[in-house]
Amino acid sequence: MSSTVPRVTALDTYDIRFPTSRELDGSDAMNPDPDYSAAYLVLRTDAADGAEGHGFTFTIGRGNDVQVAAIGALRAHVVGRPVDELCADPGSLARDLTGDSQLRWLGPEKGVMHMAIGAVVNAAWDLAAKRAGLPLWQLLADAEPEWLVSQVDFRYITDALTPENALRLLRRGRAGAAERRTERLLARGYPGYTTSPGWLGYPDEKLTRLARQAVADGFTQIKLKVGADLHDDIRRMRAARAAVGPGVRIAIDANQRWNVREAIEWTNALAEFDPYWIEEPTSPDDVLGHAAVRRAVAPVKVATGEHVQNRVVFKQLLQADALDVLQIDAARVGGVNENLAILLLAAEYGVPVCPHAGGVGLCELVQHLSMFDYVALSGTTEDRVIEYVGHLHEHFTEPVHIRDGHYGAPLAPGFSATMRPESIARYSYPDGEFWAADRATKDDDGDDGSEGAVA
Amino acid sequence: MSSTVPRVTALDTYDIRFPTSRELDGSDAMNPDPDYSAAYLVLRTDAADGAEGHGFTFTIGRGNDVQVAAIGALRAHVVGRPVDELCADPGSLARDLTGDSQLRWLGPEKGVMHMAIGAVVNAAWDLAAKRAGLPLWQLLADAEPEWLVSQVDFRYITDALTPENALRLLRRGRAGAAERRTERLLARGYPGYTTSPGWLGYPDEKLTRLARQAVADGFTQIKLKVGADLHDDIRRMRAARAAVGPGVRIAIDANQRWNVREAIEWTNALAEFDPYWIEEPTSPDDVLGHAAVRRAVAPVKVATGEHVQNRVVFKQLLQADALDVLQIDAARVGGVNENLAILLLAAEYGVPVCPHAGGVGLCELVQHLSMFDYVALSGTTEDRVIEYVGHLHEHFTEPVHIRDGHYGAPLAPGFSATMRPESIARYSYPDGEFWAADRATKDDDGDDGSEGAVA
Repeated sequence: MSSTVPRVTALDTYDIRFPTSRELDGSDAMNPDPDYSAAYLVLRTDAADGAEGHGFTFTIGRGNDVQVAAIGALRAHVVGRPVDELCADPGSLARDLTGDSQLRWLGPEKGVMHMAIGAVVNAAWDLAAKRAGLPLWQLLADAEPEWLVSQVDFRYITDALTPENALRLLRRGRAGAAERRTERLLARGYPGYTTSPGWLGYPDEKLTRLARQAVADGFTQIKLKVGADLHDDIRRMRAARAAVGPGVRIAIDANQRWNVREAIEWTNALAEFDPYWIEEPTSPDDVLGHAAVRRAVAPVKVATGEHVQNRVVFKQLLQADALDVLQIDAARVGGVNENLAILLLAAEYGVPVCPHAGGVGLCELVQHLSMFDYVALSGTTEDRVIEYVGHLHEHFTEPVHIRDGHYGAPLAPGFSATMRPESIARYSYPDGEFWAADRATKDDDGDDGSEGAVA
Repeated sequence: MSSTVPRVTALDTYDIRFPTSRELDGSDAMNPDPDYSAAYLVLRTDAADGAEGHGFTFTIGRGNDVQVAAIGALRAHVVGRPVDELCADPGSLARDLTGDSQLRWLGPEKGVMHMAIGAVVNAAWDLAAKRAGLPLWQLLADAEPEWLVSQVDFRYITDALTPENALRLLRRGRAGAAERRTERLLARGYPGYTTSPGWLGYPDEKLTRLARQAVADGFTQIKLKVGADLHDDIRRMRAARAAVGPGVRIAIDANQRWNVREAIEWTNALAEFDPYWIEEPTSPDDVLGHAAVRRAVAPVKVATGEHVQNRVVFKQLLQADALDVLQIDAARVGGVNENLAILLLAAEYGVPVCPHAGGVGLCELVQHLSMFDYVALSGTTEDRVIEYVGHLHEHFTEPVHIRDGHYGAPLAPGFSATMRPESIARYSYPDGEFWAADRATKDDDGDDGSEGAVA
C-alpha cells in the first residue's frame, strides 16, 4: 500500500454488547429481553490528519457475531481505497458493495449482508464529514443537488422517482435553507418524542411516572409498546392518557406482533384513547397488509420502517398508500446513500418522515438525516419527530443533546458515530471486562449461562 | 447430555466452494462469475441407527463463510433436542428458530439468518425422513393433513390462507394420491426443464448445440438468460428458437436486471420469439412492480421466486396477481415448513409451482417438494416443471436421476441432501485439497489472488 495519496489502511471490527436485558429496557411484544449491541467497525487511514470513519449495525444480542462477520466480508472492497476519492464519492463504494455479484446472493439488499453494507457506507460518510470538518447533516445540506442525486442508486425505484424529479425536489428544498438552518435548527433544534416511558416490561407506576416526566421535559409525543395482551394494553393506555392529558400525542407500537385482522381489531379496541399512530402493526414485509390496516384504522395513522429492508419496499409502501408516517432507520438499510433515496421518495409522495431511533447510537446517527431533510429537502418539521430513548448515549464521544423535547443540532464534524474507546474495551464480547467479570460471577453460581439472554 | 433417549449431539458446519467461475457455468446478467458453494451442516445424533441430518444453504462464493457463521449461531437451539421429538415435529424447531427474539432482529425472516434457519430445518427433515425410512416426498405425501397443517406457521398469511382452508386443500389433495404416486410418479417421473443451454457466458454455437441436445434428451422447455444486452438477446433468442423449433417452450430469465419500465420494453422486444415466461424481471422485493410488468407483457407469463425471501412476499405476489408461475427454492426460505406454507398458498390461488433449482444440490432438494405437491396437494403436473441444471450432482450420495426430460422419484430415505465425504474434504474452503493446491499454483504465478472470484 505504498503510495503518495492517503488510503484506507484497515477495516477493524468489534462485537460490542450491553447487558440491557437485565433491566427490561427495550422490552416489547416481540423482543422480551434484548441485549442492545453493536457490530462496530473503524475504517483506519494513513491520512496526515489521522482521520477515521466509524460505523455500526445495531442488533439486540445473539447474532451480533454473525453481523460482525458480514462486515468483515466487505473488507477487501474498502481497504486500499484513496481517502479523498472515497470522501468525494461515497456512492461509488455503496454501489460496489451492493453490486458485489457473489455477496448479492445473500440478500439481495436485505438482512445481515445489507446491514453490513450500511455500516461500512455510514463509516465512509463519517470519514467524509470529519475530513470536511462538518457535521454530516450540514455536509449534506450544503451539497449541490446534482451531487446528491449522483449519490443515489435509482435501480428499482424509477417507476416512483426519477433522477430528474429528485433533482427538482432538492432544488426546491434549497429555498430558505440558510434561514431554516440558522434561525430555527441551530436555535431550537429538531422535535423529538420519547419511548422511554412505554416499554412493555415496565409496571404501570413506572409508566405513569415516566410519562409525566416526559411531558415535563418538553416532549409533545410519547410512545407505548403494545401487542402482548389486549387487557393490559387497555389498562396501560388508559394510564398513559391520564398521565399526559389530551394534548400530548401517544403513539403505540406493536413491533410486528399481529396478523392483518388482529392489527385492525386491536388498534380499533384502543381507539378510545386516541392513539396517534399504530407502528409496525404486522410484518414489515407486508405492503398490502399495511395498506389494508391503514384503510381500516383511520383516523389512527399507520407508521412503519425500522425493519423495512430497503428502498424497494419503502417505494411500494408509498405507492400502495400504506403509510401515514415513514420511519427511516439509520442502520437497517444500505447507509446514507439509500436513506437519501428513501427521504427523496417520502418527499415525492408528501409523507412525513419520523425516524426510528434508540438502540445503540441510532439517535446519534439518524438526527443528521432528519436535520438534512428539514434544512434542504422537506423544509418543514410539521408532524415530524425523531424518536428518542434515553439509553446508552454515554458510550459515544458526541452524544445527542436533548433540550425541551428537541434534539440539538450536532456541531462536531462527522456522523456522531464514534464510541468511546473505554466502552468498546469494557463491553466487547465475550472478552471485554464486563463480560469476563459476568462470566466469572456466573461460574461461581454454578450457572453455565447456556440459557442466558446472551448465550 | 446423559440421557436414555437419543439426542442431537452436534451441529457441524462446512464451507464448501466449487470453482465454477472458471467455466462460466451459471453466468447470468447479475452473476457473471459465480463459484457455486454450500454452507453445509450435519446434525449428528447418538441414535442407535447412527442417523444424521444434512442440510445446506446454496451461495455463489464470497460470503459463504458468513452463511456458515449464521448456521453456527443456531447451534444452541438444536443440540440436545431429543431425536424422536424433533422428527415427530420439525415445526417446533422451525418456530423456535424464527422466533428467537434476538436473532429475529437480523431479519426478520429474510437474508442470511433466514437461509441459515432453512438449512437447519431442512437438515431436521432429512433426519426425520431417514429415520422414517422414506424419501421426504413420500413422508410428506403419506402424512395426515392435520399434521401437515400443524407444521405450517400461519403468522402473517391468514389474510390469504387460514389453517381451515389449508386443511381443506390437503384433504382434497388426497383423492387419487395413491394412483398418482404409483402409476404416474414412480413410473414416469416429474417433468423437468433445462437451463444448461442458456447461460449468458456461452457462445451461440454452444447455446445451439446444447439446446438441440436438450430437445433430444426429452425436455419440452429450455431457458435462456437475458438482460445484459438487447441486441445479443435478440440474436441468442433467435438462435435458440431456430434450434428447438416452435413446439418447445423457451423461458427467459433476467435475474433482476431491470427497472419496471425496462422489463416491459425488453420483454416485449423479445416477444416475436414467443418466450414462455419472463423470470425475475425486476427486484424480487417488488410485488407491485411484478404486477405492473405482468399486466404489460401478457401473454408472456411472469415467473419469480428464487430470491423471494419468505411466505409473506409470496402471499402478496399472489394477492396482487403479480405472478403466473411461482418458483419456490428449497434453500432460500425457512426450510420445508415455510415451503409447505408457500405450496399451500399457491394451491389456494391456483398458481402453478415451477421450482428454481441448479446451484449446488438444489435439484436434489426441491424435487421432493414438487413430488409431494403433485401426489398430495395440487394433484397435477400440468404447466409444472422443475428446473434442471446438469452441474455438480456427482458430489451427492443420491444425485437426481433425469430420464427423458423427467426427474425420477428418489427412493432412498431422506431429503437427498447428503454430500459425499470426499467432495466435502476436497472443496472445503480455504484448506481443502482443491483450494490449497489452487493457492499454491497462484503463489507460483506471483498472483496473490486478491482480485480473484473467490477472494
